[in-house]
Amino acid sequence: MLGKIAEVLAASRDEYFRLSLLNLGANQADASFDVDGAIYTMKYYAKIGRALAEGKMLKEGALIPLSKSNTFVGQHFLMPAKGAAVFINAFNFPAWGLCEKAAPALMSGVPVVVKPASPTAWLTHRMVEDIIKSDILPPGAISIICGSARDLLDHVREEDIVSFTGSGDTAARVRSHSNVLRRSVRVNIEADSINSAILGPECAPGTDLFDLLVKEVVREMTLKAGQKCTTIRRVLVPRQQLKVFGDAVIARLRSMKVGNPRNPESNVGPVVNKAQQSSCMEGLVKLKEECEVLFGDDKDFQPLDADPQKSAFVQPALLSCKNGRDAKYVHDVEVFGPVATLVAYDGLEDLVAITRRGLGSLVASVFSNEASFTRETILGIGDLHGRVLAVNSAVGTQHTGHGNVVPSCLHGGPGRAGGGEELAGLRALLLYHRRFAVQGPADSITELAGLCADTAALYS
Amino acid sequence: MLGKIAEVLAASRDEYFRLSLLNLGANQADASFDVDGAIYTMKYYAKIGRALAEGKMLKEGALIPLSKSNTFVGQHFLMPAKGAAVFINAFNFPAWGLCEKAAPALMSGVPVVVKPASPTAWLTHRMVEDIIKSDILPPGAISIICGSARDLLDHVREEDIVSFTGSGDTAARVRSHSNVLRRSVRVNIEADSINSAILGPECAPGTDLFDLLVKEVVREMTLKAGQKCTTIRRVLVPRQQLKVFGDAVIARLRSMKVGNPRNPESNVGPVVNKAQQSSCMEGLVKLKEECEVLFGDDKDFQPLDADPQKSAFVQPALLSCKNGRDAKYVHDVEVFGPVATLVAYDGLEDLVAITRRGLGSLVASVFSNEASFTRETILGIGDLHGRVLAVNSAVGTQHTGHGNVVPSCLHGGPGRAGGGEELAGLRALLLYHRRFAVQGPADSITELAGLCADTAALYS
Repeated sequence: MLGKIAEVLAASRDEYFRLSLLNLGANQADASFDVDGAIYTMKYYAKIGRALAEGKMLKEGALIPLSKSNTFVGQHFLMPAKGAAVFINAFNFPAWGLCEKAAPALMSGVPVVVKPASPTAWLTHRMVEDIIKSDILPPGAISIICGSARDLLDHVREEDIVSFTGSGDTAARVRSHSNVLRRSVRVNIEADSINSAILGPECAPGTDLFDLLVKEVVREMTLKAGQKCTTIRRVLVPRQQLKVFGDAVIARLRSMKVGNPRNPESNVGPVVNKAQQSSCMEGLVKLKEECEVLFGDDKDFQPLDADPQKSAFVQPALLSCKNGRDAKYVHDVEVFGPVATLVAYDGLEDLVAITRRGLGSLVASVFSNEASFTRETILGIGDLHGRVLAVNSAVGTQHTGHGNVVPSCLHGGPGRAGGGEELAGLRALLLYHRRFAVQGPADSITELAGLCADTAALYS
Repeated sequence: MLGKIAEVLAASRDEYFRLSLLNLGANQADASFDVDGAIYTMKYYAKIGRALAEGKMLKEGALIPLSKSNTFVGQHFLMPAKGAAVFINAFNFPAWGLCEKAAPALMSGVPVVVKPASPTAWLTHRMVEDIIKSDILPPGAISIICGSARDLLDHVREEDIVSFTGSGDTAARVRSHSNVLRRSVRVNIEADSINSAILGPECAPGTDLFDLLVKEVVREMTLKAGQKCTTIRRVLVPRQQLKVFGDAVIARLRSMKVGNPRNPESNVGPVVNKAQQSSCMEGLVKLKEECEVLFGDDKDFQPLDADPQKSAFVQPALLSCKNGRDAKYVHDVEVFGPVATLVAYDGLEDLVAITRRGLGSLVASVFSNEASFTRETILGIGDLHGRVLAVNSAVGTQHTGHGNVVPSCLHGGPGRAGGGEELAGLRALLLYHRRFAVQGPADSITELAGLCADTAALYS
């Protein structure tokens, strides 16, 4: 069914690009990141789902002896939740945000109710409409609520799962909702994240990794106008490279044209609306309290081919922070637009301490050819990150990207990032299953286990 | 180290029994359930921990290809949390409650801070003192806070784990604490549970399973005076057996002597204090609104060899509910003492619906020789239970007990039971680890993975 859904969505790809432009101001690259990401993720789950045998449950681990004669044994199972998967989604990924959550929920046999963010609900609505009209799924398997969530959380029950993507403030309201608390409703959160990219100590100007990270930073700042949860917000650079790395980023930023996504000369679009534009400006004011603005503070900034009063463009801005240990806003304020801050570090210990100040992030990337530096960085920050990307010269341009969420790898992060887990291949099914132990007669349990796929498939 | 801790604790077993008597009014059987359970659990983890190879992390699953040349790959790891494991424990298991949580935390390399329930902190305090004095663990690996938790939760951080056992009301306060919310502190909850035991439709009086369940119900009601989170609260009986099953339970209850645990004639002790006694009485008042009292409503009930004014005995009470579908308190009110309610059911569908009214429980048990009945019951209720125990005639007395938590099997349950997971062998280590993905050069990742034990060991 997921494969057929992917085909239905792929057939309307052009229309989804059109809605992305109209509703989000997304240029081709921005729309592709969301829409093609959605279709790819759906196809990916259709493919890997074939590794799961048929069955009403999943069997986990071996039989556990519980009596001397082995007549009485234990066995763990994972049973799909019998309620609904309730998605409260973010404005920046109306397509991908739906599909990356819906694919594993539907594969688990759990019906989906999606509440997209109001500013960009249009595309999600169209996709759900197309899925329902295709008659691939049984009636009721997918529903959509547009507009305010109102009393939605008053109606969730013990059997339901709530998966929220959005701000930490709203996440706290979801988690502390009286009905959610009283019923211990399972909640998965993906919230704010001050992601880091790290330039290795040996990466001098002119080296391949120096250049690769410069490109990656600019790509991250400008793609979707920086409106990705995984976007690089802090670039940790050896102190002696701070100036030269900044210059290289700025040179590349200057070549990017911010403006009307309908204009083929423009390659950086607007943020989603005026409210987000204001939010970016407010965040920038805070960052400026402790950072130097290296680029992007032009009073006379003019977007290409667009009315600055009516549109919501933000000039890409690069800042610099010389004292990362004492800084506050750099580690706390996620400016959700084309904004990044260089932070100087002095050695591994300093680097790890500064990176950890993010208090839990979705992703960090390390660009270095020093294997021991990369390893010690991973061991120093891995527990506070959902994903660490390591690039050396052998990898070069073959890496999948700092901000690119691939469905085979975990998406999520602890602490500020919400503590949730999404994707990671078939592990995503865990959210929609309940683990329980059966203790009973060996023959009955063996028979029951025979009806199940094995959870080992989730990790393959 | 865990093995040595178990030896230290075993050496003071008699002293722990003495404290259990003085502080909890526990008789030998009650004290054994807590203290011997604690030592057994510690020994069990010492034993199964040997299956884990040395290593700084755990490796999960296979290498994930991320580039066509396989130069760039992904790998999931589990890293121990770098913070502390904070245990806020319940009064009924001062010994076991410490050890069942501490064993997997310490094995994960995560230091422990335990806040035992004030009424019974004495035994926990003594055990922690003995562990610290033994110098087995590095300094700071285990700490204890006695008395009110005061501002404890103001100090937990992203790296910490809070594991709470106690009432649903307090659980909601833990979960909604502003600092816990803001930092997405990982919280594990084991709360209230209205557990069920089910008599199969074919189990007529005189059959072995009928008698086995009668014994199990009385054991559950009287052991620790019914103060176990896993105790049977509802006994679901085919309607035609309601009367005769009740008579059989009552006959057995009459043979139990409630009274001073120092008196060898007594075999049912008090609840832990006057407050708990009052709480039981209040709960009973509610149950009586919709249930008939079959046994235990004696106005002139007198505990053996004890002053009723000063002591906290509760007469074991058996109630009967003829309309389980419409009942409210039977499914909602956990009387934390020697109290159970028979609930009539009519067929499988009714049984499943009534059992699910518990809205998430730690355990249900099914006594039946009809394999299809047992299987359909498991499939009908498994998602709302942490554990289902199935007993047929082949198993007979070899089962491990409805209320007995064995460390190899999951302890916890969804919904009202808090949604947490404990024990289940090495799965317990999951709570103290953080999953993350590393994407990077194939050779570096292979080297990193080589330093790790494999998570497959968690499920063996």
